Amino acid sequence: MTPTCENPYAAGAAYLDGRYMPVGEARIPVTDWGYRRSDVTYDVVGVWDGAFFRLDDHLRRFRRSMEALHMRPAESDAEIRAVLERIVALSGLRRAYVAMDCLRGAPPPGALRHPAFGRAYLSCYAVPWVSVASEEMATRGMHLMIPKVRRIPPESFDPRVKNFHWGDLTEGMFEARDAGADFAILLDGEGHVTEGAGFNVFSVTGGVVATPARGALEGVTRLSVMELCAELGLPLEVRDIPAEEFRAADEIFACTTAGGIMPAARIDGRIMGNDRPGPISTRLRDRFWQKRAEGWHATPVDYAAHAAVAEGGAG
Amino acid sequence: MTPTCENPYAAGAAYLDGRYMPVGEARIPVTDWGYRRSDVTYDVVGVWDGAFFRLDDHLRRFRRSMEALHMRPAESDAEIRAVLERIVALSGLRRAYVAMDCLRGAPPPGALRHPAFGRAYLSCYAVPWVSVASEEMATRGMHLMIPKVRRIPPESFDPRVKNFHWGDLTEGMFEARDAGADFAILLDGEGHVTEGAGFNVFSVTGGVVATPARGALEGVTRLSVMELCAELGLPLEVRDIPAEEFRAADEIFACTTAGGIMPAARIDGRIMGNDRPGPISTRLRDRFWQKRAEGWHATPVDYAAHAAVAEGGAG
Ligand SMILES: Cc1ncc(COP(=O)(O)O)c(C=O)c1O
Ligand SMILES: Cc1ncc(COP(=O)(O)O)c(C=O)c1O
Repeated sequence: MTPTCENPYAAGAAYLDGRYMPVGEARIPVTDWGYRRSDVTYDVVGVWDGAFFRLDDHLRRFRRSMEALHMRPAESDAEIRAVLERIVALSGLRRAYVAMDCLRGAPPPGALRHPAFGRAYLSCYAVPWVSVASEEMATRGMHLMIPKVRRIPPESFDPRVKNFHWGDLTEGMFEARDAGADFAILLDGEGHVTEGAGFNVFSVTGGVVATPARGALEGVTRLSVMELCAELGLPLEVRDIPAEEFRAADEIFACTTAGGIMPAARIDGRIMGNDRPGPISTRLRDRFWQKRAEGWHATPVDYAAHAAVAEGGAG
Repeated sequence: MTPTCENPYAAGAAYLDGRYMPVGEARIPVTDWGYRRSDVTYDVVGVWDGAFFRLDDHLRRFRRSMEALHMRPAESDAEIRAVLERIVALSGLRRAYVAMDCLRGAPPPGALRHPAFGRAYLSCYAVPWVSVASEEMATRGMHLMIPKVRRIPPESFDPRVKNFHWGDLTEGMFEARDAGADFAILLDGEGHVTEGAGFNVFSVTGGVVATPARGALEGVTRLSVMELCAELGLPLEVRDIPAEEFRAADEIFACTTAGGIMPAARIDGRIMGNDRPGPISTRLRDRFWQKRAEGWHATPVDYAAHAAVAEGGAG
């Protein structure tokens, strides 16, 4: 390969099972169980203006998820942290979407075909920041709907273990599209609200903020919203939310690493308020970004430290 | 690459999005939704003694699965059939495990991040035959158990659409290992038997054969068992099977493309019969392989037809 002035990592940098490479070269065997059995867990941390947001919280959740799946990759938390910093530095991206996956490889030939014999390994990458919602949706307020498909229940797969079992969420997106909505919010088997394709949800009714207690990922952005509610003196309830209550809410907002706090304007065709992001949702969103700009829970990336080793480690 | 006398496809041959290659080279981008959202469906057909078994049934089910997920790859059924024959011929394998996957790629940059904008494409490969159960398990009879984890319900993902959402099945395998058993048979939310990690199940009680009516894949081998029951005059019931009935069965057997009919000897620690494959299970298994040897539902692979084009198409 001829080196050029262009950064070969500009489209994104990856770390795959011990090696660094441009994201476009990071590929997994079609026979791998991480793909073939979706035997994988992951996490996503955001980089905004050159700093990770709540990196420790993401690393802690990632480790918990790996342990729940009996996965122990070679890398320690400190090493994963260094890998993530390095891929961001290699990419040079100041705003990045940074994924860390732990996959289970298929057992070696001759071994029993049991996951206990599969080796766990990491795949991480940093790419330019992406948001779940488009700019237009974020501005006008998202149009949500409740689909027929139900969220995979905790009895089958613990949603607190971040995973790629997205068949229900994907089907929800098709139902949303058919209904002319942007996103689906899935119910559990008892008719309580859970989450959507890549985000948690909150409702606001009579000034009280509420979010589901179970059946969903314990999102890091959700945790930030909880902290903001405390700071702003907004009453918060973590409990089951029946579909009927959700449909009748004054306000609804979604939240995720890939987008922050995203207010909705409609639910199942009903217009909430004045068909725009509601006042409490907007207040939380604005305060969120204000604090982010002030360095809240930020871990700056040391871009310079990795520039020198970039060439050597890329092979 | 220097050509050698050895067949570069001996370990297996693959077809990935229009191109043929050795299976070891078939890899998918870590950013692909087929992996990252397990937005993929698949099928597996067996080749035994140079012939596909029930190829049409597998192709039909694969097409139904793709349609259920709103996927329409470039290849017609006739073209998929030709791809599968060619990868088997390239590999030269007389006994092969032949997988066909249809993945949804991530939407192109700029498009809405909705699966409707993702392109569906195929990944297929043929590798040496693998069996779900080891030789030892098959001979002594499998030791089964019923785990705490429940099968993902049809309300969340239709199990008749063959999929990689194996988190529940994988967790079941860990529970089985902890219990000293070979395999877990998962129940649904109502306590009815569904299936295991890669196979359907049947019970035999008082001479009556039974298999779950729902909550499981409509297995092609299961269909073969149904045909064999009719031929052998064995009464068959397709209905809900409560866990208690299953635990008390005279015989149990599993069935799958990757292994055929596999009798069990124990369930939840209880020994069935004489701790060996039961008489009706054995009769069905023997008849199955006898008919297979006679060419039942067989489609011979034309190895010679593909030898000539192998070199040209491999690039
Ligand atoms: C299913 C699901 N729920 C919720 C979230 C939000 O979690 P976080 O705020 O930690 O990004 C995500 C993020 O990807 C998700 O995939
Ligand atoms: C979950 C599951 N059930 C059942 C089966 C058996 O289906 P078939 O007989 O068509 O191979 C499989 C095969 O892979 C499977 O994955």
